[in-house]
Amino acid sequence: MELAGPMLDAGARVIDLSGAFRLGTAENYQLWYKERHTQPELLKEAVYGLPEFCRGRVAAARLISKPGCYPTAANLAIKPLIEAGAIAREFGVVCDAKSGVSGAGRKASLKTSFCEVTENFSAYSILDHRHVPEVLRTSGLDEGEFSFTAQLIPIHRGILETIYFRASEKVASADDMLALYRGRYESEPFVRLYAPGQVPDLQAVAHTNFCDIGFKYDQKTRRAVVISAIDNLVKGAAGQAIQNMNLALGYPETAGLL
Amino acid sequence: MELAGPMLDAGARVIDLSGAFRLGTAENYQLWYKERHTQPELLKEAVYGLPEFCRGRVAAARLISKPGCYPTAANLAIKPLIEAGAIAREFGVVCDAKSGVSGAGRKASLKTSFCEVTENFSAYSILDHRHVPEVLRTSGLDEGEFSFTAQLIPIHRGILETIYFRASEKVASADDMLALYRGRYESEPFVRLYAPGQVPDLQAVAHTNFCDIGFKYDQKTRRAVVISAIDNLVKGAAGQAIQNMNLALGYPETAGLL
Amino acid sequence: MELAGPMLDAGARVIDLSGAFRLGTAENYQLWYKERHTQPELLKEAVYGLPEFCRGRVAAARLISKPGCYPTAANLAIKPLIEAGAIAREFGVVCDAKSGVSGAGRKASLKTSFCEVTENFSAYSILDHRHVPEVLRTSGLDEGEFSFTAQLIPIHRGILETIYFRASEKVASADDMLALYRGRYESEPFVRLYAPGQVPDLQAVAHTNFCDIGFKYDQKTRRAVVISAIDNLVKGAAGQAIQNMNLALGYPETAGLL
Amino acid sequence: MELAGPMLDAGARVIDLSGAFRLGTAENYQLWYKERHTQPELLKEAVYGLPEFCRGRVAAARLISKPGCYPTAANLAIKPLIEAGAIAREFGVVCDAKSGVSGAGRKASLKTSFCEVTENFSAYSILDHRHVPEVLRTSGLDEGEFSFTAQLIPIHRGILETIYFRASEKVASADDMLALYRGRYESEPFVRLYAPGQVPDLQAVAHTNFCDIGFKYDQKTRRAVVISAIDNLVKGAAGQAIQNMNLALGYPETAGLL
Repeated sequence: MELAGPMLDAGARVIDLSGAFRLGTAENYQLWYKERHTQPELLKEAVYGLPEFCRGRVAAARLISKPGCYPTAANLAIKPLIEAGAIAREFGVVCDAKSGVSGAGRKASLKTSFCEVTENFSAYSILDHRHVPEVLRTSGLDEGEFSFTAQLIPIHRGILETIYFRASEKVASADDMLALYRGRYESEPFVRLYAPGQVPDLQAVAHTNFCDIGFKYDQKTRRAVVISAIDNLVKGAAGQAIQNMNLALGYPETAGLL
Repeated sequence: MELAGPMLDAGARVIDLSGAFRLGTAENYQLWYKERHTQPELLKEAVYGLPEFCRGRVAAARLISKPGCYPTAANLAIKPLIEAGAIAREFGVVCDAKSGVSGAGRKASLKTSFCEVTENFSAYSILDHRHVPEVLRTSGLDEGEFSFTAQLIPIHRGILETIYFRASEKVASADDMLALYRGRYESEPFVRLYAPGQVPDLQAVAHTNFCDIGFKYDQKTRRAVVISAIDNLVKGAAGQAIQNMNLALGYPETAGLL
Repeated sequence: MELAGPMLDAGARVIDLSGAFRLGTAENYQLWYKERHTQPELLKEAVYGLPEFCRGRVAAARLISKPGCYPTAANLAIKPLIEAGAIAREFGVVCDAKSGVSGAGRKASLKTSFCEVTENFSAYSILDHRHVPEVLRTSGLDEGEFSFTAQLIPIHRGILETIYFRASEKVASADDMLALYRGRYESEPFVRLYAPGQVPDLQAVAHTNFCDIGFKYDQKTRRAVVISAIDNLVKGAAGQAIQNMNLALGYPETAGLL
Repeated sequence: MELAGPMLDAGARVIDLSGAFRLGTAENYQLWYKERHTQPELLKEAVYGLPEFCRGRVAAARLISKPGCYPTAANLAIKPLIEAGAIAREFGVVCDAKSGVSGAGRKASLKTSFCEVTENFSAYSILDHRHVPEVLRTSGLDEGEFSFTAQLIPIHRGILETIYFRASEKVASADDMLALYRGRYESEPFVRLYAPGQVPDLQAVAHTNFCDIGFKYDQKTRRAVVISAIDNLVKGAAGQAIQNMNLALGYPETAGLL
């Protein structure tokens, strides 16, 4: 938050990996991050760096706010559906998210010590994770429509989100849903789609900048389950920052990432 | 399925840990287990051995069908709420379930080999797991109201289920919900309840016959998240079988289990 | 170190799980633990609580020093052989020791954080671990004869030591070596011996107070490999303390431990 | 074994990753691999592909036998010392080896199933692993001088070997030993040496073609502990095969590997 200004003044393009510039307003930041935002004027300038949805603005931005890890996997899975009116929002969207331990950062902490994490699985920040407003802001969902739980997997890296919703009448079949995703992601270098009924696991995306998306659709009841998987240290962090940098500096978007 | 009859004929009380006698009808068994039920007459006699809800019938039964691991954790969490009319069922109930690898049984299998499981997390049987009808039968939910995904955690033992629903108007607050659970489980030796906002992790129940239940309730939007945790090898299998045996033979219910 | 005196003065029997009273002299303590020993008078009184070798003295002791985890596994494996003159000491004894992460204690530490330990294996305190003098004092080996490396396994609990030496002429065969161990441990409740060529793994001793010992002996070259396994949190810590307490208070030695 | 001949006849250069051509004679193969060698004439032609010691012959070879994973880490650590007469061989060399589970190959097997391996550590092939003769053949040690135990770490990938020996009078200090290694490996692209007292862990070499070597030397007693670490899937398998291919085809040796 404090470093971006001086860097911009010095003429640098800035890609911020923290949460400082993700939420749009100082009030929202204060509400979810529990501290005052000291650079509100930069908030207006900051461009949200989810290339699949803001490619053009990223290319032109001075200050890019790299998305959070959980919101990256969530928004890539649901935003195309929201935009297409494919979700019956009145029934709500559930996002059950799981992350490897590196998502907590590298530090001495009892909570992330080996013996607390191994042979364990635990939930945290149920319904009030600070990544929730970021998903809402990008996807267009309201808070009451989006239920999110973060959970810790005893692994090093990876985020897998299991997303439940009821499809609207626009989605008559699994093929309809796949067509919808394909229409949106056909030429995206870092989103991979699976055949209906097939879903990614975390080894599929480890050490890559891919977001893999698969789903199961029960036509009769319109219930859908989408699974979205990324490596939180790559597409969820440094890899997506490089993707943003490539766009900002006019390099090929996939440079260093494939 | 084949052994129960001869054992009963020989005068034994039988506690079946398989899925052979859980589903009530031969048709249902055929549908979900993909094989013909050869002992339909025993199906009628079998008592579902979830002591917290069928204690009296278990004590008198000759043939007890020990519940599946996933249904045990699911039904203990949702059945009291369903019975009390506390869930707005029209919005559906989501059960995102995770299990340690011992749930797959002890056998040579590529799927459960160390290198496939470690540093991984994967979903299977999305919306069509054979434990689904067992949950429906006990809880009273309809298939279209209950969305279930099974997932594999890289640990040995433990099941954690994250359950999402919208509460009905009967639940004005978190305290209401806790009171509801307390009313049902106050004197249960193997169900432990957590204060609102507190939830169990898997180390809390490992090597025990407890089912631990905690929840988070967002009063404003009526969204609730309940977390239910058991050790799949104890309350989810052999431990609950012993609990049933204790009831059937007139021993103290907790004998050998506390 | 500081608490033992006042407790003894108050009439208590004291079992110390720390390393404060294991090394016999204040000088030795200073040398290996890098701090001054403030209670040298108690050092003389302290009895080393390895019941398999000091049972009588433990029963009579006011102050019992519970052995370290690594020395427990090492001494149970090699002391019977040293006493019987079964090891050709001039060739040296190698003890390659591995421990689960709980051996480091429960605390916030980068070194024992999940992401540093998982998918890793690392050595520490090579040739200069503070448990070395404890092994020497009990076994009778000289420092130059005993090479010890401690290593961290990405598991919660368990110590496995792989011990290499050349047998003396007293050991003509694997059966001779087994007879030697049997003679010493026949009536020990917490030492289990394996047939020649069979060795324990860590799951065999997890959550128990057993020390399991197995070995391979190459008669032609007199090379022997002994594997000794304990649960560092039980026989290596609290379990052995209870075993000592049972002896000190006149309870059956196995009370609460089998 | 069977495929190499036809491939050579067809004009291909062959790099064999199996153990078929590592042991020099059909008798030795039969003894350690427990099956008859069907291509003894090819055994004579096969060149052992440890580039650090056979670079010239590899470049000219038609049939290259890629070294085993354990022997790669062992020989890179001890061969320079043997050649320099730096080891007092009469005291023996102990190699305590640990491997990740991928070393067992990808297959359905109870032994390598998740629940058998997690929270465990186990030894196998004590003193009689089939990689022993390969180490002897390359290093020049005799069987009676080399004690080897293989052990399974609950991780995916990586081999760490802890090697114990007594140094000869040619090694007066840790600096002498380092100088010896440096003299041998100075210009090697895939061997990294550590300062005396520093040793590698497995995360240091994961996903790389490096062999990292560190040691501790106790000048007073001449006892030395060398730790050698590789990724068994890279320098221990496919990576070293590529290194051989680069040499055989005249590419830069590090192509695709750095």
